[in-house]
Amino acid sequence: MTSPRIYKHDQPFAMRRGGVLASIELAYETWGTLSDNKDNAVLILTGLSPSAHAASHEDDPSEGWWEALVGPGKAIDTDRWYVVCVNSLGSCWGSTGPASIDPSTGERYGPTFPELCLEDVAAAAGLVLDHLDIEYLDTLIGPSMGGMSALAYLIQRPGTVKRLLSISSALYSEPFATAIRALQREAVWSDPEYADGWYQPDQPPARGMRLARKVGMISYRSAEEWRARFKRDRIDADKAHPFAPEFQVESYLELHAQRFVGSFDPNCYLWLSRAMDWFDPAAGESPSKVMAGLGLSEATVIGVESDMLFPIHQQKAIAEALQSAGVPTHFDGLASIQGHDSFLVDIGRFDPAVRRAMSTDK
Amino acid sequence: MTSPRIYKHDQPFAMRRGGVLASIELAYETWGTLSDNKDNAVLILTGLSPSAHAASHEDDPSEGWWEALVGPGKAIDTDRWYVVCVNSLGSCWGSTGPASIDPSTGERYGPTFPELCLEDVAAAAGLVLDHLDIEYLDTLIGPSMGGMSALAYLIQRPGTVKRLLSISSALYSEPFATAIRALQREAVWSDPEYADGWYQPDQPPARGMRLARKVGMISYRSAEEWRARFKRDRIDADKAHPFAPEFQVESYLELHAQRFVGSFDPNCYLWLSRAMDWFDPAAGESPSKVMAGLGLSEATVIGVESDMLFPIHQQKAIAEALQSAGVPTHFDGLASIQGHDSFLVDIGRFDPAVRRAMSTDK
Repeated sequence: MTSPRIYKHDQPFAMRRGGVLASIELAYETWGTLSDNKDNAVLILTGLSPSAHAASHEDDPSEGWWEALVGPGKAIDTDRWYVVCVNSLGSCWGSTGPASIDPSTGERYGPTFPELCLEDVAAAAGLVLDHLDIEYLDTLIGPSMGGMSALAYLIQRPGTVKRLLSISSALYSEPFATAIRALQREAVWSDPEYADGWYQPDQPPARGMRLARKVGMISYRSAEEWRARFKRDRIDADKAHPFAPEFQVESYLELHAQRFVGSFDPNCYLWLSRAMDWFDPAAGESPSKVMAGLGLSEATVIGVESDMLFPIHQQKAIAEALQSAGVPTHFDGLASIQGHDSFLVDIGRFDPAVRRAMSTDK
Repeated sequence: MTSPRIYKHDQPFAMRRGGVLASIELAYETWGTLSDNKDNAVLILTGLSPSAHAASHEDDPSEGWWEALVGPGKAIDTDRWYVVCVNSLGSCWGSTGPASIDPSTGERYGPTFPELCLEDVAAAAGLVLDHLDIEYLDTLIGPSMGGMSALAYLIQRPGTVKRLLSISSALYSEPFATAIRALQREAVWSDPEYADGWYQPDQPPARGMRLARKVGMISYRSAEEWRARFKRDRIDADKAHPFAPEFQVESYLELHAQRFVGSFDPNCYLWLSRAMDWFDPAAGESPSKVMAGLGLSEATVIGVESDMLFPIHQQKAIAEALQSAGVPTHFDGLASIQGHDSFLVDIGRFDPAVRRAMSTDK
C-alpha cells in the first residue's frame, strides 16, 4: 500500500507564531488525472480530524471520509477533476505534527511542537501543490476547519484559485465555539494521563479524549436529529457501572468516543483545536477587504441551519463578504438536521449543492 | 442564624426505585405569613443546584438565588403569599443526600445512597408542607428541574394545588439534554479523584466538577448572548499553562467552574442529574392524560426561545398538554437571549411574566 503519498519537504518550515520545524512531511492523496494544461486541479482542505483519505482509490480501496461525494461521476467528479487532499500540518495521519519524531532529538515533538496556526496548515498544503507542480487551482474546497485553512490559502496565494467552495466554516471562531473547544481541550490536558503532553502513545489520556469526543458529537449534531433518532429508547445495559449508558443516545456517544480514543493523537487534537480559535484573518476589520484581493472568479458557500458550531449566520457572513468584494457568490443554506456534520452524512442535500458548485455550466 | 430551617422526618422514607432511608432531614425557608385560612401558600421547587435560599429574609439577609423575583412587592410578593422553598432531597444544602451521614453507619452515604427520582424529591417536599400543616397550595412554582418535580408533586397530590407556574422545564428529558447530562456525569465519575464515589469531602474530583460546570454553563446560556457579550475579546493571561484562558469567554467559564467546585457535592450532583434523565411521568402515553387528573384551576407555562437544554417546543408541549386536559393555560414564550438561565438573569422579561402568572386578577 502506497497510500497516503508523503512529500518530504527537507527545508526549514517557519511557523507563523514563532518556531521553525527543521523539515516537514506532508501526507496527501490524489484522484483523477491532471490535464495537460493543468487547469483541472482541485484541492480539498479538511476538518480537524479527517486524514487525506477523502475517498477510495486504487492504492487504498478503503472507504474515505467523503466517499459519497468524491469519485468518478460523483459531485466532485474525479473523471473530470484532478483532486488533491492534504492531511493538515499538525495532524497525525502522515503529516508532521506533535506526534511525529523531532529529527533533532529523535523523540516525539509532543508539547514542544511550536504553536500551530491554520495559516501554517495552508502554507504546508501549498508546498504539496508546489511539489506536484500545480500553480493554479480550479477549485479550492474547504469544509469546517478546512474552510478556514482555505481562506488562509487564498490570502497567501492570491490570484491562483478560480473558485472557492466553503462549507460549514467561519471567518473566525465565535465565543460559543471557542468555549466548546476550550472545554474539549481542558478535558484532555487536565487528564492526569496527559502528563503535560508527555504521555506514551500506548497510554494516552483516554478519559479526556473520550469526553472531548463526546462534547464534539454533541456540538457536531443537533437536538432535532437526536429527537427523531433516539427518542427515549433504552439499550440493554449491563450496568457494570452505576453510570453505564442506559439510553440509546448515551450508547451512541460511547461508541464514537471509543472509536476516537487511540486513533487520534491528543496533542495533535489540542494543537489543531486551538488553531481554530486563533484564526481571524480579518482581525476585526471588514472581511470583504480580505476577500477583495483574492482574485476569485466565483464562490459557493454552503451552510446548514442546524449547525451550532459554525452557525448559519457565519456562512452568510462569508457569502456576504465575498459578494461585497465583487466575487459572484452563490449561498446555499440547507435545511439539514444533522448539524455541523451534515456535509458528511446528509448526502441527499449536499450532493446536489456540491454538484452545483462544481459545475462549470451554471 | 437559624436559616435554613430543618425538618427532621424521623420515619423511614421509601425511595421510588428501591431502597429506604431510615430518616431524612429537609431544609426549607419561608417568606411572608400564612393566612388564617391557609389559602395563600406558594411552594417553589428548585433547579438542580440552588438551595432553599431563594431570597433574603430576616434570618438570612444574604442574597438568594431568585432575589429579584421573590420578596415584598416583588413578582412573587411575600407581602401577599406565604412562600416556601425546599432544598431538594438528594441535594447538599441541608437536605438529606449522598453527602449526608448515614445514621446506620455513621459515615457519609456516598455512592450507597439509593437511586433518586424527582418523584422522591416531590414526596420529600410534600413532607415539609405536611409538617407546616399546609394541605393546599395556591401556586406551585417550578423552574427547570423544579418544574419536573412540580409535576411529580401534582401527580402525587392531585386536587391540592390551584395554580401551576412551570418555567423552562420539560415533561421528560430529550436525548440532547440526556447527552449533555451524561457527559457532565462522566466528567465527574471518570475523574480518578471520584474514587467510585468515596472521595473525601476536602478532596473532591475537582477536575471533573470543573468540566461538568463548564458544560453546564455552555448549555445554560446561548451563543447569541456570548456573541454580544464576549466577542473575540482577550484577557490579560498569565499563560502559566499553555492552555490557560486567553479569550474572555474562557475566563468566564473558568470563574464559574472555580465557584462551583468545592461548593456542590459531586455525588449529589450525579444523583440529581440522573434523576432528570429518568423523569418521564407520561412514559410515552399522552401527557394530557396525566394533566387531566391534577385538579388545577389554571396554569402558566413560561419558556425561552434560546434555551437549548429545555427547548421552547418542550414548553409548548407542557402548555398544550395542560390545555388539552381542560386546564386554562397561559403560555409565555420569551425572547430572552440568555438561554436556560434566563429565568435567573433576564429579570426585565421574567418579572412581568411571573407577575402575570401570580396575579389573581387577570
